[in-house]
Formats: sequence, C-alpha cells, structure tokens
Amino acid sequence: MRTKVAIIGAGPAGLMLGRLLDLNGIDNVILERKSADYVLGRIRAGVLEQGSVDLMERAQVSRRLHAEGLVHHGTDLSFDGDRVRIDFTDLVGRHVMVYGQTEVTRDLMDARTGQTIYEADDVALHDLDGKSWVSWTKDGVSHRLDCDYIAGCDGYHGVSRASVPAAALATFERVYPFGWLGILVDRPPVAHELIYAHHERGFALCSQRSPTRSRYYVQVPTDEKVEAWSDDRFWDELRRRLNAETAEALQTGPSIEKSIAPLRSFVAEPLRFGSLFLAGDAAHIVPPTGAKGLNLAMSDVAMLADALIEFYDERSNAGLDFYSAKALQRIWKAERFSWWMTSLMHTFPENGAFGRRIQRAEFDYLASSRVAQQSLAENYTGLPG
Amino acid sequence: MRTKVAIIGAGPAGLMLGRLLDLNGIDNVILERKSADYVLGRIRAGVLEQGSVDLMERAQVSRRLHAEGLVHHGTDLSFDGDRVRIDFTDLVGRHVMVYGQTEVTRDLMDARTGQTIYEADDVALHDLDGKSWVSWTKDGVSHRLDCDYIAGCDGYHGVSRASVPAAALATFERVYPFGWLGILVDRPPVAHELIYAHHERGFALCSQRSPTRSRYYVQVPTDEKVEAWSDDRFWDELRRRLNAETAEALQTGPSIEKSIAPLRSFVAEPLRFGSLFLAGDAAHIVPPTGAKGLNLAMSDVAMLADALIEFYDERSNAGLDFYSAKALQRIWKAERFSWWMTSLMHTFPENGAFGRRIQRAEFDYLASSRVAQQSLAENYTGLPG
Repeated sequence: MRTKVAIIGAGPAGLMLGRLLDLNGIDNVILERKSADYVLGRIRAGVLEQGSVDLMERAQVSRRLHAEGLVHHGTDLSFDGDRVRIDFTDLVGRHVMVYGQTEVTRDLMDARTGQTIYEADDVALHDLDGKSWVSWTKDGVSHRLDCDYIAGCDGYHGVSRASVPAAALATFERVYPFGWLGILVDRPPVAHELIYAHHERGFALCSQRSPTRSRYYVQVPTDEKVEAWSDDRFWDELRRRLNAETAEALQTGPSIEKSIAPLRSFVAEPLRFGSLFLAGDAAHIVPPTGAKGLNLAMSDVAMLADALIEFYDERSNAGLDFYSAKALQRIWKAERFSWWMTSLMHTFPENGAFGRRIQRAEFDYLASSRVAQQSLAENYTGLPG
Repeated sequence: MRTKVAIIGAGPAGLMLGRLLDLNGIDNVILERKSADYVLGRIRAGVLEQGSVDLMERAQVSRRLHAEGLVHHGTDLSFDGDRVRIDFTDLVGRHVMVYGQTEVTRDLMDARTGQTIYEADDVALHDLDGKSWVSWTKDGVSHRLDCDYIAGCDGYHGVSRASVPAAALATFERVYPFGWLGILVDRPPVAHELIYAHHERGFALCSQRSPTRSRYYVQVPTDEKVEAWSDDRFWDELRRRLNAETAEALQTGPSIEKSIAPLRSFVAEPLRFGSLFLAGDAAHIVPPTGAKGLNLAMSDVAMLADALIEFYDERSNAGLDFYSAKALQRIWKAERFSWWMTSLMHTFPENGAFGRRIQRAEFDYLASSRVAQQSLAENYTGLPG
C-alpha cells in the first residue's frame, strides 16, 4: 500500500487534516488505534474560536455547527462571589462558538472520503529520515503503508512523538497539582454563558454542550478518586464554589458521565522530525482553562495542510520547512494564556497568602481595566496569525 | 509638647504629608532617626507617575521638578536581545517624569515650615488606642509629644509598624531569590529612556538620574557581596546582558555609588491601628521593577492628608475610617504589577525550562499586542483611583 500522507490518529486533528487533503486531491490514509465509536465516546472541550469555525467552513463541514452551535458573546469570571462579565463582542468584536469536540469529530467522520483504518494495533513508524513507512496489524494480519509524509495526530500518549529519538526533541512541561472532576448532565445550563469561578475551596466551571446538556467541573487534588464523588457530593461542592445566585439557579440531575482529568502544560519542539510532523496533543498539551486545546489542534493542522498542499501543488518545501516555527509561535501564546488563566482561577496553596492576594489583585485589575479585559478577550477568542 | 499629627520619618512620604498638612494649617511634627544629610544621601528610585507630579504641584514644590525632571514618553523592554518600545503617550496618553527621589526629598525639606526633629533616638509610640504620645531622646535628653494621630512613614524597618501588636496585623510577603546590584556613574545615560533587559544571565536595567548621571543595575543572587564586584566586572556583566547595539553605546566610568538591594514584595494590613496610620514603605514594599515604591508612598500620603484635612475641617471620621481600605486597593494593584514585571524580566532558575518559555511567550505576546502594551503602560504610568 502506498499513500502520500499517512495520518496517525482519527481525532479531530487527524480527521481535519485528512479532510483538507481530500478536498485538495492529496491521497491520505488515517490509522486509528481505537474504533470510531470509541473515538466518538470521548468527552472533550467544546469552545471553538472563530478561526476554528472558519476552518470547519473551509472543510465544508459547518452545516450542523451553524445550526446547533451556540454563539457566546462573552463569559463570566467570578472570584469569591464577585463577578465580572468579559464581553468579547464589545471588547474585541469577536465571539466564540460552543459546539462539542465530539460533534466536530462526528461531522468530520461523516464527511470523510479518504480511507480510515480503525482498530489498527501496534502502529509503528519507520525510516522517518528516509523513505518512510508505517506498519500495523489488524485482526492479526500485518500491514505496511509507504508514504511521503507522516502526520502525528495521535495525542499525548500516541506513538508519533514516542517515535522521535529523545535527543531530537526538547520538551517543556508543567504538571499542576490538581485535576478537574467533571460531570455531564442532561439539564439546561445554569447560565447562557460559561462561568469560571475561583473560590477558596478551589476552581469551578459551569460549562455546557447544548441548551439541554451541561458540563460542570470542580478542581480536585491530583490523587482524588472519582469513586469518592457521589453526584450529591459533587453538586454540594459545586454549589459552595459558586456565588449564591448561581448556586440557587443550578439544575442538578443524575450524571451521565463523571471523570477526573489531570492538568498539564506540555510542549515538544520541534514539530518536525524528518518526514514526521506532529500536530495537536501529540506535540502540546494545555490545561483546559483557556479552552485552547481543540483550537490549537485545528490551527496546527490548518498550517500543516497548507504546507502539504503547497508541496504537492508547487513542489515547494517552504511551508513544510516553516511549519514547526510558525505553529510554535501560536502554540506558545496559547500555552501562556492557558497557564495564566489557570494560575488566576485555581487555588495554589503552595503559593501562600501573598500568592492568593496577587490572584485577587489580578481579578480586581481585570474587573476595573478595559485593556486588561481586551487582553483576555483577544486571547480567549483567538489571537490572529 | 503637643501637636495634632506626629509624623514618624522624614523621607518623602513623611515630608510630603507634613507639607500637605502645613499648607492646610494642621499642626504637625516630624521625627526622624537620622540626620537630614543622611536622608539625602540615600539613593532611591526616580520615576514619577503623573499623580505624583500632580501631588508635587499641589504641595507647591514642583518648580525644580519641572525645570530639571526628564519627561519619558516610553520605555524599552528587551528580551534576549529583542526589543520592544512601550510608547506610553501613544498607548494611554500619559507619560512619566524621571526625577530622583533624593531631589523630591530635598525639595520637600527646603519647603518645610513645620518642625522636624532629626537624629531623634529611641522613638517610641504609646497608647495607640487611647490618648497617644510619642517619646524619644535627643542628645541624651528625653522628650514627649502628645498628639491626636500618628503617621508611620518610617519605612520597612521603622518603629511604627513594629509598634502594632502582631495579632492586629496580617502580613503578606514574597522574598525574591535575588537582588539588584546598582551603580551610579557620572556619565550620560546609554539611551534617552529606560531599558529593562532580560537575559539568560539575569535582568539588567539602564536607568538615569539626569542627562549626565546614570544608574545601572544587574540582577545578582541574594548572597552576593558588593566587594566582589569591581567596576570592570560590573560593566562587563552589564554589557553581556544588553543587546549588541546598546552595549556598544554604553559610556562607562568610575562608580560614585555601588550597592546591592534585595527584592521583596510585602504588605501589612490594615493600615490603621487606633491613632496610628501606616503609609509608604512602613506598610508595603514592592520590588523596584515597576518603579512603584515612591509613587505608592505619594498616593498613600495624599489619601491620608485628605482624610486628616477632612477630619480637622469637618470633624468627619469618614476619610480616616476609609483610608486603609482605599489605599490598599491601589497598593495591591501596584503589588500585582510590580510582581508581574519582576516575574517577566528576571531569571528564575527554579521555574525550569517551561517557566522560561512562558516568560518568552509573555514578551512575544507583549511585542505583538497593542492591548497588552496598553495594560503595561497604564500600570507603569499609574492606574487611576
């Protein structure tokens, strides 16, 4: 078997890249370790920047997004019960769209015309610095795919980044001493927009997937066990961390999903090793506070698709050679913002009383300064370039 | 002896408070542990916000400031040799004035009409929660001054804050693991404006006191000894931390002062205990990176003077009762900014490679975002309120 681009991973990054290549007549094959149903079962973020919406349009998969996605013109930040609304539209003339990552993935799967091989076991990348190929087994049978390039879109734990010699990668990491305990519930969201809440007991987030499905989170220590959290305990803790009015309005119900996700900042550099290009979570992780993970994956693959199209259309290596540096500029800005918003909104007992007052001063400054709000808004809705 | 307001400390805070009270006919006495010459020999900051300039005008001591002070319309930030100019005037329509704290002190000393007692030993505050009085000895003779109120303007190491029972004060502190080694030199400054430089070897600052007198600093470990730094070593280290063009233009010469100052963030709350009001460094310290120390002292005493004038003119306690809360709002915003600018520009090996990249990303964001620059500019030139 032979293709131009072997794409590792059928998450939104891999599927979007495949879609953009398909639309430009560039042959590609996607290899995915799990089944399509498993991929669709993963609960993930749901805030799309305008750039991600634009990309869905370019990929001709935006019909349902525009029909079902929720336009959010702002978001609420709350600190010990005091609230400030960040009005994106007023501040920077942009907004975001709430549309679950699962739905993005489904739309891209439905539109897929190229070949996707699900449940590919033991995927391995070979000869990254020469004539590259990918091997895997499926139903006990070994397969080989020769290719020009490999796109590593298989996430933080995937085989792609692990295939690069350690000496060829610089990695930068911060592991936060807490995670997010999240539940999904079929109840209308407590507010039209998201609420990011800082409380001395920890961070909480009121999020949503649709007008009838809500997603709520509370900050918990890294070693917390999800089994220790009954629905009642979760709702009680969430209410404590919201201001009185919001807590009162909260509609609770039985959770349909409950899990704990650790928080991590991570970047691997460069994004290219020979014929392999890393994109999305395979190359970088942001804590979810800034809603940047999916958007960064989208901007990575948009750049990578453009570089590959340039190569096949014009036989120019310029885009491919510049991909890593260009994508990393955007990635580090998103890493910075995600780190900042995480630092502002969570509790960090190790930073002591002074650290907590600085957080409060940051919130007070934000509440009183239009340019500080504009800075948050331009980052949240997506920086240009 | 009896007065209305006993002011402890004849630095710029105490002298400004005394001046404002004198102009309003409110009797006050300043007690200072050191001699006037000693006070004038202290080398301190030299960047005045517009609010501090306004206060000098209100105090009728701005003639020399306007004649000799240097208007700075912006400042330069440099990171590993890359530079961005923060154009205050363009960004927020304000500027700052470079005029040494020593000169502010001298102008206020010259204008002083009330009594100042220098070289007052063993100053002690008594009966802060009743009929208060202050005692001291001078030339071996004991003295007593009865008063309505005491203004503690005697700095971080002064007796005022130390006179408040520990249980009545909450303190917030961060000690940075480095200091600033500074030298004063009679050479023209290397640039018309200040240059804040981050380098992997540490922070450096090109500052100035006048068109012919410059002040330069380099970040050094806390335990560094000034004796270990010959002038040549200082200039070599400074040049390494500046970009090539600036290093080339640097005019060096024999130092006329050389010292190491530790960096600290500190706030004591509240600012009032009975009849005692804390102002300036007696209540709070900022690291010098944001040029906020003198300006905060000025805004503290402006608020305190207004509150005392209100009390003596209208017999209203409102201003005095609100002084602490009002001043602390401004103080914490300046603490936040000073902490932020310190965190951006210095090296913090303990934050690791990820932390350094976040600093770089912060600089890159600043270099590319007008609202980020506006945020820096509005803080540097002085937030309203």
